[in-house]
Amino acid sequence: MNIDMIRAAAGRLEGHVRHTPLLNSPFLDEIAGRRLWVKPECLQHTGSFKFRGAWSALSSLDPKVRAKGVIAFSSGNHAQAVAYAAKLHSVSSVIVMPADSPALKIANTRAYWAEVVLYDRETESREEIGTRISEERGLTLIKPFDEPQVIAGQGTCGLEIAAQAAEQGITEAQVIVCCGGGGLTSGIALALEVDAPGLHVRPAEPEGFDDVTRSLRSGKIERNARTSGNICDAIISPQPGEITFPIMQRLVGPGLLISEEEALGAMAQAWNRLKIVAEPGGAAALAAALYRKDEIEGDHVIVTVSGGNVDPAMFKRALDTLA
Amino acid sequence: MNIDMIRAAAGRLEGHVRHTPLLNSPFLDEIAGRRLWVKPECLQHTGSFKFRGAWSALSSLDPKVRAKGVIAFSSGNHAQAVAYAAKLHSVSSVIVMPADSPALKIANTRAYWAEVVLYDRETESREEIGTRISEERGLTLIKPFDEPQVIAGQGTCGLEIAAQAAEQGITEAQVIVCCGGGGLTSGIALALEVDAPGLHVRPAEPEGFDDVTRSLRSGKIERNARTSGNICDAIISPQPGEITFPIMQRLVGPGLLISEEEALGAMAQAWNRLKIVAEPGGAAALAAALYRKDEIEGDHVIVTVSGGNVDPAMFKRALDTLA
Repeated sequence: MNIDMIRAAAGRLEGHVRHTPLLNSPFLDEIAGRRLWVKPECLQHTGSFKFRGAWSALSSLDPKVRAKGVIAFSSGNHAQAVAYAAKLHSVSSVIVMPADSPALKIANTRAYWAEVVLYDRETESREEIGTRISEERGLTLIKPFDEPQVIAGQGTCGLEIAAQAAEQGITEAQVIVCCGGGGLTSGIALALEVDAPGLHVRPAEPEGFDDVTRSLRSGKIERNARTSGNICDAIISPQPGEITFPIMQRLVGPGLLISEEEALGAMAQAWNRLKIVAEPGGAAALAAALYRKDEIEGDHVIVTVSGGNVDPAMFKRALDTLA
Repeated sequence: MNIDMIRAAAGRLEGHVRHTPLLNSPFLDEIAGRRLWVKPECLQHTGSFKFRGAWSALSSLDPKVRAKGVIAFSSGNHAQAVAYAAKLHSVSSVIVMPADSPALKIANTRAYWAEVVLYDRETESREEIGTRISEERGLTLIKPFDEPQVIAGQGTCGLEIAAQAAEQGITEAQVIVCCGGGGLTSGIALALEVDAPGLHVRPAEPEGFDDVTRSLRSGKIERNARTSGNICDAIISPQPGEITFPIMQRLVGPGLLISEEEALGAMAQAWNRLKIVAEPGGAAALAAALYRKDEIEGDHVIVTVSGGNVDPAMFKRALDTLA
């Protein structure tokens, strides 16, 4: 994994992936106690940064291999991103999802033209099902984060942040990234290391699901006790990746932790002041910048709003925090 | 009014006003029955395109005149835009608003550092109050749409649309613009006339507040019977402007009319598929593209989402249309 892979991914993504803007608001600056800049990846195709990694992975495959189709295990943003990137490459996709996934997520993934294969979480293993289907049909597995071409794709977000920070004259800042398995966090960190060495990445996680924060502290991969039971579902994974962790260990930290209430508050502020839609996990970094400002240093803070796929009921909960 | 004024405004706006992206979604294409492209001016500073016109007007003033401050009559997006543009020019602003304006709008305008002067709609005239304050203090009045430098500023949105359409290979399209007094509509039309002559502008208005649509049909300025009582308040004005109407007569039409229910539906789709926040009036053009597709021609339609300043209760009403 290195900057050259990220630059190569950026070349493949050009014209297919959106360059998202860098937003700000004097009202958010006031809450954050410093200049706050927001990279709204919710405006990316399929509503999250995951489309960068999915496009990078799909576009890097040998055309003959790609033509046989791809497969992903995911119930969320990665699934939609892989499905849509496959569709735009005119190849088929299979997404393996738990049968008890919310109906809306299943419908959304199907809407991106994926074949959805449901499995019973209690009695079946998604890996076994996925491996069987993959072998039968010759599909290529696209992993959600622990895959170099996926990390390279997410890293293109870092190239954009570096260029946009330079345009604003920002040479030093903390860059807070919503962090699950670490694909976006490590990709951005690799890009900034070269293109904007004064910008330092810090991962944001939900309280109680702080595997990356603890792993960075202990120096070895730590697991979460639970992998469900938090509204920030998009950024909860069992543990940091084998590829992403060493990168994070070298370049990022310390972690920042936020509560569910703070995620909802940040969603509301993003709606009110930036006119963008954030999902709870996608608002974690913004929440840290707004509500954990004493744990941050410097005159500028840059945050990702990494996704916006949220259902109306949850969004109303966020709006209710404004009352 | 001509393209040179718009290009000059673009020069003054550079670095101060956001270049908004051009968004799309396969799901919106499907509803619209053609490729649908969205220009999200809700992402502009202060949450609406009005900041372009306000910055253009403020920046075109003689510095000595500007230093005395500016004044605007408005209860909405123009007020916030003038107040913030004034603040960034380090000059004071007075905004004259009805005393019965929603508390949130008054608070938001004050939050942009404006001095808010309230008047009684029943017993006082805002023009008289405004003229008195303006003369006493030497303030310059910034009109909301019937002012060449304001139209020039809004026209910069058209320059961006022309460039973005060319990038996408679009040479022919209808461009639907949310239309109140016609500042944005006429500005965009003037820009496209030169930079993208295959792009034709059509105004969108709420049913029952169709002054521009009727004026274009009759060939003379027609008034609305009412100027309140519709959720699309941001685009309701008594009649087209003296400067904007002849431009619209020459370059735009016919008008498209949408219902309140359609505005709410378009807000929900913008939230769901593009992850942007639209206010009812700001969603009028999108509503026309989605729900009045039989009145539109061609393979591509481009719409402005002109603003996103909406209160939580109204936004929840929009989300409820998804259920």
